[in-house]
Amino acid sequence: MSPAPIATTDRIRAIDAWWRAANYLTAGQIHLLDNPLLTRPIEPDDIKPRLLGHWGTSPALNLVYAHCNALIAETDRRLLYVCGPGHGGPAMNANAWLEGTWSELYPEITPDEDGLRQFFRQFSFPGGIPSHAAPETPGSINEGGELGYSLAHAYGAALDDPDLVVACVVGDGEAETGPLAASWQAHTFIDPVSDGAVLPILNLNGWKIANPTVLARIPGEDLDAYFRGLGYEPITVDSGRVGDDPYAVHALFDAALRRALARIDDIQAAARAQAERAAAGQPAGAADLRPRWPMIILRTPKGWTGPNEGTFHSHQIPLPDVRTNDEDRARLEAWMRSCRPEELFDERGRPIGILGSIRPEGDLRMSATPVANGGRLRTALDLPAITEHGVAAGEPASATGTLGRWLASVVERNGSAFRLFGPDETVSNKLDAVFDVTSRVWRADRAPGDEHLAARGRVIELLSEHVLEGMLEGYVLTGRHGILNTYEAFAHIIDSMVGQYAKWLESSSDLDWRLPVSNLTILLSSHVWRQDHNGFSHQDPGFLDVVASKQQDLVRIKLPADANTLLAVTAHALETTNRIEVIVAGKHPEPVFLSLEDAVAHAAAGLGVWDWAGTETEVGRADVVLVGAGDVPTVEPLAAAAIIRQHAPGVGVRVVNVVDLLSIGDPRKHDHPVSDERYDEVFLPGTPAVFAFHGYPALVHQLTYRRHGHDDLHVHGFQEQGTTTTPFDMLIRNDMDRFALAHDALTRVDASAHSELLDRLTAARDAARAYAYSRGEDHPSVTGWEFAGWPQD
Amino acid sequence: MSPAPIATTDRIRAIDAWWRAANYLTAGQIHLLDNPLLTRPIEPDDIKPRLLGHWGTSPALNLVYAHCNALIAETDRRLLYVCGPGHGGPAMNANAWLEGTWSELYPEITPDEDGLRQFFRQFSFPGGIPSHAAPETPGSINEGGELGYSLAHAYGAALDDPDLVVACVVGDGEAETGPLAASWQAHTFIDPVSDGAVLPILNLNGWKIANPTVLARIPGEDLDAYFRGLGYEPITVDSGRVGDDPYAVHALFDAALRRALARIDDIQAAARAQAERAAAGQPAGAADLRPRWPMIILRTPKGWTGPNEGTFHSHQIPLPDVRTNDEDRARLEAWMRSCRPEELFDERGRPIGILGSIRPEGDLRMSATPVANGGRLRTALDLPAITEHGVAAGEPASATGTLGRWLASVVERNGSAFRLFGPDETVSNKLDAVFDVTSRVWRADRAPGDEHLAARGRVIELLSEHVLEGMLEGYVLTGRHGILNTYEAFAHIIDSMVGQYAKWLESSSDLDWRLPVSNLTILLSSHVWRQDHNGFSHQDPGFLDVVASKQQDLVRIKLPADANTLLAVTAHALETTNRIEVIVAGKHPEPVFLSLEDAVAHAAAGLGVWDWAGTETEVGRADVVLVGAGDVPTVEPLAAAAIIRQHAPGVGVRVVNVVDLLSIGDPRKHDHPVSDERYDEVFLPGTPAVFAFHGYPALVHQLTYRRHGHDDLHVHGFQEQGTTTTPFDMLIRNDMDRFALAHDALTRVDASAHSELLDRLTAARDAARAYAYSRGEDHPSVTGWEFAGWPQD
Repeated sequence: MSPAPIATTDRIRAIDAWWRAANYLTAGQIHLLDNPLLTRPIEPDDIKPRLLGHWGTSPALNLVYAHCNALIAETDRRLLYVCGPGHGGPAMNANAWLEGTWSELYPEITPDEDGLRQFFRQFSFPGGIPSHAAPETPGSINEGGELGYSLAHAYGAALDDPDLVVACVVGDGEAETGPLAASWQAHTFIDPVSDGAVLPILNLNGWKIANPTVLARIPGEDLDAYFRGLGYEPITVDSGRVGDDPYAVHALFDAALRRALARIDDIQAAARAQAERAAAGQPAGAADLRPRWPMIILRTPKGWTGPNEGTFHSHQIPLPDVRTNDEDRARLEAWMRSCRPEELFDERGRPIGILGSIRPEGDLRMSATPVANGGRLRTALDLPAITEHGVAAGEPASATGTLGRWLASVVERNGSAFRLFGPDETVSNKLDAVFDVTSRVWRADRAPGDEHLAARGRVIELLSEHVLEGMLEGYVLTGRHGILNTYEAFAHIIDSMVGQYAKWLESSSDLDWRLPVSNLTILLSSHVWRQDHNGFSHQDPGFLDVVASKQQDLVRIKLPADANTLLAVTAHALETTNRIEVIVAGKHPEPVFLSLEDAVAHAAAGLGVWDWAGTETEVGRADVVLVGAGDVPTVEPLAAAAIIRQHAPGVGVRVVNVVDLLSIGDPRKHDHPVSDERYDEVFLPGTPAVFAFHGYPALVHQLTYRRHGHDDLHVHGFQEQGTTTTPFDMLIRNDMDRFALAHDALTRVDASAHSELLDRLTAARDAARAYAYSRGEDHPSVTGWEFAGWPQD
Repeated sequence: MSPAPIATTDRIRAIDAWWRAANYLTAGQIHLLDNPLLTRPIEPDDIKPRLLGHWGTSPALNLVYAHCNALIAETDRRLLYVCGPGHGGPAMNANAWLEGTWSELYPEITPDEDGLRQFFRQFSFPGGIPSHAAPETPGSINEGGELGYSLAHAYGAALDDPDLVVACVVGDGEAETGPLAASWQAHTFIDPVSDGAVLPILNLNGWKIANPTVLARIPGEDLDAYFRGLGYEPITVDSGRVGDDPYAVHALFDAALRRALARIDDIQAAARAQAERAAAGQPAGAADLRPRWPMIILRTPKGWTGPNEGTFHSHQIPLPDVRTNDEDRARLEAWMRSCRPEELFDERGRPIGILGSIRPEGDLRMSATPVANGGRLRTALDLPAITEHGVAAGEPASATGTLGRWLASVVERNGSAFRLFGPDETVSNKLDAVFDVTSRVWRADRAPGDEHLAARGRVIELLSEHVLEGMLEGYVLTGRHGILNTYEAFAHIIDSMVGQYAKWLESSSDLDWRLPVSNLTILLSSHVWRQDHNGFSHQDPGFLDVVASKQQDLVRIKLPADANTLLAVTAHALETTNRIEVIVAGKHPEPVFLSLEDAVAHAAAGLGVWDWAGTETEVGRADVVLVGAGDVPTVEPLAAAAIIRQHAPGVGVRVVNVVDLLSIGDPRKHDHPVSDERYDEVFLPGTPAVFAFHGYPALVHQLTYRRHGHDDLHVHGFQEQGTTTTPFDMLIRNDMDRFALAHDALTRVDASAHSELLDRLTAARDAARAYAYSRGEDHPSVTGWEFAGWPQD
């Protein structure tokens, strides 16, 4: 089929053989139940009843893989392959099979014809493996189902691994997404001295599912300008220019890949030499802050070498009727035989010699690299004791400010394994103590007035939650540690990414060979109850609902009430593994209720009774339970308890605080929630409970609907009532203020016995609001640390 | 302060006066409670106790506004101003006040000193207006709180309004976000004949909150290349080149704006002349498919003309201590007086003559344009009767396929007011009948094999849910109609956008002057129960949870069980206003249970008993209620009912179907849910109810926790158990299959009486799974339209 080869060195011959082998194995997975080596004509019963998979993107993925392998085999360079067009799962599987990794990780896939049959069969088959690149795919850190995150994952993986090159194939479909479009700028945070490199490879095959793609259909000079504008040096390989002749394309791509890697070497060598000279106190010259990194634009036909090559009809199954249509089945057979399997596999189905000549060894195989199984590389952080960073109970303190000082110490001790990510909020979220010991990395121009920027640093800030979350995921999945800090309301921007990451964890925790990675820790600050100044668009606690809808054994939601409890839950999040840890904490000075020791115990218990805050002991019984979960939502029930203590001393109030939200969930469904006995001991079913919750009240109800006494639970929370106003008016608008809570509590105990006090509470609430509306700030009685004041006094 | 003016035409003088006036009013809103005209020195009590607002971005916003106004006043051109840096709310307010719109829409803001005092006071003040551009802001269609959507809104607004120019200011912070980065490509869908134009104005002021911005800190040639690569002709105005002298900048910006608009005129004139010639059958020449639209890069100091000009410290309040610090207060006064208010306002606070010379009239004022108050322009769609498109009950039909034929008719009848948006899923979601009457608009190269592309068309497809959602929002908010169709799982990508849009609706529905706009209709297809082939990443029904957490009076969630019900709920969504309508529907052939007439009645009722499906009548009582909500989740309880009818005929089964999910919510909290009486009539509290729900079970529990008999509700749904498998195995994995439902129902009625049947159900379930695992497809007994088959038969 091919014209005479243009370049026929052994190496190119081996690359082409690998490519054909991978293409063969890709088509085999999609179609065949049996007859994996085509030892006989394909019969209808050899074909899967349902054909599921994507051929269109696979030949180009295989091409890139083959070339990377040749390069690794030649140079022992460490490469990681991030596959953006994850629909090409069968291609990634195929290469891993050729590398022998499947048989190592999944013993049932023996390295012979039987194993090959099983390898084909399991693909997209009930009880088998997914159709896309996924946790099950050896060598993958990128789920290819929801597109947009490959490049951010690649950049996250490259951080702090100076010898690694991450080859990241980006599909032209994925390139249309916002997260991907923003990710091109992530090289702004890559230090050529201490980080590895990302080599983006944009594969233009012209179509998405049924539509052309933008980048494939704009003038070549615009495409080139786009990537130059993004700071790259684009290197183009267009298979059409050589008539799609594989050997010619191999020669072109080989040259492009070598040129790109030479360019990476040059950039890194120059930067490292300069850094060494500078470190040695020699004249070093200026560092190149913004080197022009290479990227490759690879234009190939969609579904190259298969039926319907070069049309969108090759996106999934080019020949859907092969089981029933004899002619189509013959075409399938011709297609698969055109890969010349007899040259590639021996009679027992083992890859033959020429393939071995470019197969990397051991951990250098991209399907077996420990980088893509980060638990193999992960080492525990060297965490400073929180005891040195706790604050005195009783005094107000900024929770995140306190945490920031501890995080500075974490940064100091864990120079190349811990990073902070945030959308320009590290300072505004009051974590700025970290800038005493590190900087934001910034590889672009600087101007007078810039602060805390450096050519390298442990903080990455970009106004794209998508890129940050993607980089953190890539960093954690390759064995390191980090925290994303962001505005609570805007965490919704990454709902989908976090959901996909939860799925990744869910699937990978079923795989013995995937070792646990660090938690994905997300710190939400600037939260709903303290965005009074920014208004309604900044007031949304609903990220918690999204997280809680995932498998609850893999997620945690922590609502520390004060600075010490925040220290305790964050240290725990940085110590444990394989979960998504969401922590909500305020940044403004708030009361510190617990000593550090008590905070650690409380955080470990998840929830508990705060005897000192209630009147249960004095009164001798609990008539009502006041519950708080969150920081502001702890202040208000405590203030309500203080009001009741002072003005209705005969009412027995129990105060409960919940720090680990999912501990109140259903122990019949999940391992983590407290037992019914413990729950009942704390919440006293049958006693009315007034619950001040940080988020939407419905979340508490959905967690507790099978708990005893659920009908006694009266949850206050954010009722989607927001605007630009004062902090206390935010509480009033959502019935979360101390007066409303005390009113609700006393009403449920005995409204008629307390009618005068109830009126006074209503009046106090009205007075607080009137004060704010006339003065533009809250009455001092509701902003201080004394809880029983009245605004009208 | 300024050097001698470079250009002092009257027009530039008027522009400068407007700019100073707007800057003055901006600073006034941020700081002053009183003394709005500075008729005396500023006293501490004139200052707001809490200073809230953002000065940094405002001078540039005011500059652009002033210049646009001069142009409108001169040419009567229709402009819409979309303000991406929405923190600059006070700037947008200021311009609207100068145009007189505030006083027209808010009578308490009288056009005099008292009104000005009130105008200043209300800003970011309790009971007042938000600090960001918001629904309260005259002329706004873009909430500036969560950044990223301005350009997509602008492109949506420009569609089908051929004389409109949308000036869209994009901040350099916002430009870092993914959605914004992807939106630059939206000109691929702009037809210069029938659409208006977008003029993007990128304002580079160098910093976000505390950090530099990428686009402000890359080399100028990269910046230029980036926008050329994106298809634009960038026109740069750099105030630094003329020493930030306002008059010189005015002259430069005036020239840039004129050049940009002349370029837009040229593009449109050429395209329209070509189209006219072609329409008249004259030699027309080829249309320019991809004209190079202009955009402006405007580089100005952050916080220009104010304290801390040109540093990030001017982002919010440049002088935070003006109330207490005399020196700072003096600086504030000097700053405000440098605007020379005495030249701008008469003694009664009214803008003086020179401002009037560039103030547009009536609806041409950007703050008063009906385009930004779409309800003023909206006309109802001319909807074809669904009666002609219904399908026969009893036969299987594709729900979305059926809808597609009706939508084709909607497109035909509403040529320039209705659009379909989708991420390359219009065909795969089976709505392809619309391509019988229209095409995808595509203004880039075409290739052999492309289908349904044209230079103009009613369908917009890009692989960016963000851009599509943003364009639909912009289209709807400017008075038109549309539908976004997307994969259910990937709707999470736009969680945050839909949440912000809900907030927009919530705020705007409190404003008399904002007239109702069309619903934002989102059709979710390729849903969780039919993504067995794409695997776990494509299986997520959680978008419904996000939508349900918004104010439920403004959202609807419709789960039509069949094709006819889908027609009914979609027609309703296209007729009604001011809501978010989310519809979930399958694309594969499924049973049609209801005649069109019954479907319309059922959809209107929201939920109801399907007598014909149960055995209640025969048995004379209901022992158990089987509930379905969704299409696949209706098939399974019906199949369970059929099994019980056949094999346990003494058990009275009631079958209930819920199409309007929020109708089961809490009628004490919201207007829409059915009354308790109606709920009890349908669900029979006290009788066990087994509920097959489309999404996560927790959503049903959170909606119903205050309903009678909530403890009797046993909800089956998606339990986050997914992979690539068969459709029926997806049900088995999540305990949603007919055998599991029948088993649950009979167990709750009387387990011991039905022990043999219970065993048979378990065996059937095992057999179904075994069949799928061995054959790779489902047993015919669970895929057909007969419901009582057994896989082992």
